[in-house]
Order: sequence, then structure tokens, then C-alpha cells
Amino acid sequence: MLERIRIVLIGTSHPGNIGAAARAMHNMGLGDLALVAPRCEPLTSESISRASGADHIVHAAKVVETLDEAVADCTLAVGASARSRTLPWPMITPRELGERLPRELAGSESRVALVFGREDSGLSNAELQRCHAHVHIPTNPDFSSLNLAAAVQVLAYECRLASLSAEREPRETDDETLQPLASHEELERYFAHLERTLVAIGFHDPAMPRQLMARLRRFTLRARPERMELNILRGMLTATEKCAEPHPAGAAKGRQNQTGQRSDEEV
Amino acid sequence: MLERIRIVLIGTSHPGNIGAAARAMHNMGLGDLALVAPRCEPLTSESISRASGADHIVHAAKVVETLDEAVADCTLAVGASARSRTLPWPMITPRELGERLPRELAGSESRVALVFGREDSGLSNAELQRCHAHVHIPTNPDFSSLNLAAAVQVLAYECRLASLSAEREPRETDDETLQPLASHEELERYFAHLERTLVAIGFHDPAMPRQLMARLRRFTLRARPERMELNILRGMLTATEKCAEPHPAGAAKGRQNQTGQRSDEEV
Repeated sequence: MLERIRIVLIGTSHPGNIGAAARAMHNMGLGDLALVAPRCEPLTSESISRASGADHIVHAAKVVETLDEAVADCTLAVGASARSRTLPWPMITPRELGERLPRELAGSESRVALVFGREDSGLSNAELQRCHAHVHIPTNPDFSSLNLAAAVQVLAYECRLASLSAEREPRETDDETLQPLASHEELERYFAHLERTLVAIGFHDPAMPRQLMARLRRFTLRARPERMELNILRGMLTATEKCAEPHPAGAAKGRQNQTGQRSDEEV
Repeated sequence: MLERIRIVLIGTSHPGNIGAAARAMHNMGLGDLALVAPRCEPLTSESISRASGADHIVHAAKVVETLDEAVADCTLAVGASARSRTLPWPMITPRELGERLPRELAGSESRVALVFGREDSGLSNAELQRCHAHVHIPTNPDFSSLNLAAAVQVLAYECRLASLSAEREPRETDDETLQPLASHEELERYFAHLERTLVAIGFHDPAMPRQLMARLRRFTLRARPERMELNILRGMLTATEKCAEPHPAGAAKGRQNQTGQRSDEEV
């Protein structure tokens, strides 16, 4: 179970924090680290020293430019967040995260990302809105800013407890009814398609977004769409786009394509 | 409750670890630090830097020569230990420690010490045997040596959870921002509108439903839509219908014929 949990660090500034996070991960049995646009060289004498024997995790870390790349194949992304922002998002405690993990990782293709932001400014709203849920580590309200590796340590500890508990009590799941969930990448393609369509039908003006896409993201992510459901939704968008096409020639052509694209399996 | 929990560090070698432990303590609302025979100067630029604003805890730390002095007024001392030694001792998990704390600290004069050993060699047998119980943080058997501040972080986190649960503090949810959920009636109106629209754009043929509406219901209901979200979705449907309308009669007929591709199934 632990091997399908990825720690994602965004824009980390201090090599020491990367090393200390790797140590915390390895201590708890996690090994999959992704670094998104790090603002420092990940492998330095300081990061290796703080990793204290877990530097193979830093060596093996995947360095990418965007959060989307880091979590493309993940079926659940949970962002570590200090507090709910302007648009409240599903918020869980570290313990609730641990309790959810065995179920979330029951499917053999499922993969969970725990996403941590910058030392100084955390995760941006755009990054938080790419996550299904936010996890808040309870802290002293007067001194709430946890060291990055300390935050990784707490969540990794909950992951380990969840894994130990899952080993002790094999869950009776209805595995055969489990449908593959949509991956992050599939969801992002859907959201891009949705926004395009809403612009085409004149419902959405990106110059005046009024949180429309954020609200639709939150709603959709809350439902944890299965891959097949997402295919249906995309089919609906394609059919809608054809209707929105302006000129008759295009409309006729569109209608034909539309027939060809009625299938639920459309990607 | 938290103010009566003391963190005791024995023979610490690295000022940075003392600072980081102080930060972890303050993050979780602990403030009472005792240093037993530290093997370094506790207040250095490194410890202050790693304390990151919690250096008042290092300043206020009581520095003593022996464990006995450090825990003299404590009613319970729990030693952090990698594993049971030659002489088995009552062993608890961090979670069990948290569960015991409210009871242990119920009396106004009771005080709990959590005792941590040296970075290199932990607690001696003599020190462990001065503790009522030992707490073992579950770790990867192949890489079990936690950073000192990381160990403090995990136990301090369990203390904070115990305190939150004991004080029955209202959970940190976004309760105050809870939006009214859509009523059954509103949902049914939405589903009727959705079906009408999907027919209008030629995506849905009620004569050949293929469980489309059932799947969309299941998906939508799973998300427990708020009333405001449902209003957005209905606005999207209205905009979509408008796009579907302006097609000339011929085109509308064309769309019907097109669904009639499966005219054998038509009633």
C-alpha cells in the first residue's frame, strides 16, 4: 500500500528540507518523491546530510515543472493546507486521511499523492483547486507554520499507521465492483474541455471568471468520478460544442461527427 | 492540558535538533522543555534558526544534570524507545499515549514527561527503567532511526490531538460556511432539465437510454450538490439549450433523423 503513495513537494527552497523529508518518508516506509519546480538544487551536501541514509529517495526523485505532471497518474490528490481559503474545499484531518487510505488504495491502479507547498507561502489557490481534498494538520493557532519535513513526517506517520492497520485487519471490500477512477490527467483534460465548452455556449467569460471553474472543480472532484463517468461527461461536452458551432456548414459537419461520437467510451 | 506536558531531551549533540524540537513543540502547543546534560550549547545561531520563531522555548528550557531532576515533579514519565530491551517494559503506541493523556492529566497537579534520548544511542537502560512506560513510534524496520525533532513532532502531534479531543474543541471544519444542500425536489427538477437538454443536443435518446441518466444521477448524488452548485449547473443547461435552439427546422429534423440512426428501436 505504501508504495502507491507519492509525496509531492512544490517549489521547495532549502535542500535540507528535501533531505529531511526523504528521511521522514523512508522512516515511515514511503519511497516515491516528486519535486515540482524546486527553487534549489535538490542534491547538495546539506540535503544528503539531512537525509541521513535516505538520500537514495532524493536521487530517485522525479523532478518536473508542474503539479499536473507530478500527479498525472494519481487517482487522489490531497493538498496540505493551513486553512480553508475563500472557496471552502473538502477538508480532512490527517487521521481521517489515514482512515481513508486503505479504501482509496484498494484498486490496484489507484495511487495517492500528498502535496506540500513552498516553505514561505504554501500551495497557491490554483494548486489547491487541483486537489480532491485538503488536509490540515492541527497546530497551535498562534504558531501554525510547520517545518516542511515536519509536515511530511506527520502525514507519513499517519500513512504508516494506516498501512499497519490494513495489514492487521484485511478489509472485506467489494473489490469486484470497484470501477477504475479517473486519473488527475483525465480530470484536467475534462476541466479544460468543460471550460472550452462553457465559453463556446456563452456561459463563461474567462475575463470575468467569478469562481465558476473553481466551483465546478470542487463539485466534480467531490464526486470522485470514475473513468467511465468522465467519458460520458466528455461526450456531453462534445455534443454541446457541436450545437454551439456557428455556421450551417459547420453545423452539418458537426452533426455528423456527433453521431460518430455518441459512444460512452469516447475519450 | 498541554501546558502540563514536558518534553525532556537527554544528551542532545546538535543545537539544530534542539531548535527544531522547540519549533515542533510550539507548533503543537507545547512549551515546557527540559535539557538533561546537553552535549552542545543549546542556544546557537543554528538552534535559533531551526526554532524559526520558537526560540523562546529554548531560552526558557530548564537545563539539568540528571533525568531524575528533569522529571522530579512528573506523575508519568514515558520514554521514547526504538524497541523493547532485555527487560520487557510496558510498551505503548503514540496513539495509545494520546488516548491515556486526558486521564493522566485529569488531576490538576499531574504532569507528564516525554523523554527522548541521544541522537546516536537513544536512552540507556537505566534511563528507560526510570520511565513508567515506553512509547515506540512505528517505523520502517529497515530504517528505524528517526530524527530527534521528527520523533518529538510525532508525539507532540498526538498530544495535540488528545488535547483537542479532550477539550471537545469544535472540529476545525468549514461548518460556518456550510451551504444549504439541494433538496430532493430541486435535484429532480435538475435531472429533468438535464435530460431535456441532452435530448436537445442529440446526446440522449430516451428510446435507447443505455443507463445514461442513471449514471449521471449516481455521479451527481454522490457529490451531494449544494443549492448554489445546482443553480450553476442549471444555468449551464439553459445556455446549452439556447445554443441548440437556433438551428433551422431542417437541422432540427436532421438531428432527429440522426438519433433515428437506430430507427429500428424507435417507438
